[in-house]
Amino acid sequence: MAMASRGFYLACLLLGCLGFLCILLITYWTRHWHGYFAWDGSLHMFNWHPVLMVSGMVVLYGVASLVYRLPQAWLGPRLPWKALHAALHLVAFVFTMVGLVAVFGYHSHTGVAHLYSLHSWLGLAAVILFACQWSLGFAIFLLPWAPLWLRSLLKPLHVFFGAAILSLSVAAVISGINEKLFFSLPRNATMPYQSLPSEAIFANITGLLVVTFAMLVLYVLLASSWKRPEPGTQPLLCEHK
Amino acid sequence: MAMASRGFYLACLLLGCLGFLCILLITYWTRHWHGYFAWDGSLHMFNWHPVLMVSGMVVLYGVASLVYRLPQAWLGPRLPWKALHAALHLVAFVFTMVGLVAVFGYHSHTGVAHLYSLHSWLGLAAVILFACQWSLGFAIFLLPWAPLWLRSLLKPLHVFFGAAILSLSVAAVISGINEKLFFSLPRNATMPYQSLPSEAIFANITGLLVVTFAMLVLYVLLASSWKRPEPGTQPLLCEHK
Repeated sequence: MAMASRGFYLACLLLGCLGFLCILLITYWTRHWHGYFAWDGSLHMFNWHPVLMVSGMVVLYGVASLVYRLPQAWLGPRLPWKALHAALHLVAFVFTMVGLVAVFGYHSHTGVAHLYSLHSWLGLAAVILFACQWSLGFAIFLLPWAPLWLRSLLKPLHVFFGAAILSLSVAAVISGINEKLFFSLPRNATMPYQSLPSEAIFANITGLLVVTFAMLVLYVLLASSWKRPEPGTQPLLCEHK
Repeated sequence: MAMASRGFYLACLLLGCLGFLCILLITYWTRHWHGYFAWDGSLHMFNWHPVLMVSGMVVLYGVASLVYRLPQAWLGPRLPWKALHAALHLVAFVFTMVGLVAVFGYHSHTGVAHLYSLHSWLGLAAVILFACQWSLGFAIFLLPWAPLWLRSLLKPLHVFFGAAILSLSVAAVISGINEKLFFSLPRNATMPYQSLPSEAIFANITGLLVVTFAMLVLYVLLASSWKRPEPGTQPLLCEHK
């Protein structure tokens, strides 16, 4: 267990650095190349969108998903860890909602159509699944009334959809960064996306960093051996020993 | 086991329909809105790219990943199933390579820069990981010389990266369809992407269908109980019973 903990804390350190870098780089990209942040319906309001979606739907969501992997959560009562898991996901969801309001507000104010791109369809699907996942998780796993057989039945699905929603969010983030770069570095500009100006390289690297962070979260969640030993009643995705 | 098999074959049927639909829709999108297929460096050569990437990196890759989940593979010698798994992935890789040659050929012929978008960076990362995964899988799991402890050590990683590569491919496909729609339905066109013409709706639905297919593959691979019973030496991602 000591060895497992050392490896786990090393992974946590790496995850912390990667997550921090993701938020830092997406904020720097927006701040440096697209100006300040505002809440006025302009492109400066849109600036909140990438920052809040990466912070909420990827970084905070990823951190919240891994609460049960903490060795401290392996022993003692589950309830405080469940409450922390739900609370962190709720904060991630609030970030996501504000990030959505930012893009809807910008579109409404400037007359851009809502929800036309594949990026927006996929992003919305991820957010709707997140809302369903949180509500079902709250009703079945946090409130005390659900019978054990129902929890046992739904737990592998809860873990699977948790991982699936993170993957969908990453696909939405990638298509979103890609789309934004085609908007801000158009073909007829002096420095189009094609010529790989510094903004393009910076934002492409930010996108790959988001992917790397999410992959590490999914590894710790699904494939590592850092799992709370189960009494046999509540199944989780895990390795045979 | 009979119940598990029934559920598995139902999932197979659904996967078959979804996979067939993905290839059909991506081909129809290309054929109907972007003309015929050719190998001449023009946009008609590019047309092969989305069709071959979706067919190879998603549909065939997904099918190849699930070979060990067939109830027929649960009993008897492993070697024929390993060979089938490797062979199907090789066919998927050949499709992928031809799909890459199609886009590189088009770019070279028309003077478009190579590998500048986040879509291309992520897609290339997925293809490189796929090549590493196939080569390592061939050397460690198919050739008879690797010791059992090494196979046991690498198997969870092989399964994890198998799933991770599929997720990356889907993110690349989503950003690719999104990018292509911004190219073919520009803002100054009579029917821009924003106005959601029939091509946009059709291609957006195709993208969501690719996501649904991949999610179902990942569910069968990681979270279902349709797994060959292990003798305890070769770990796999699985549920507690």
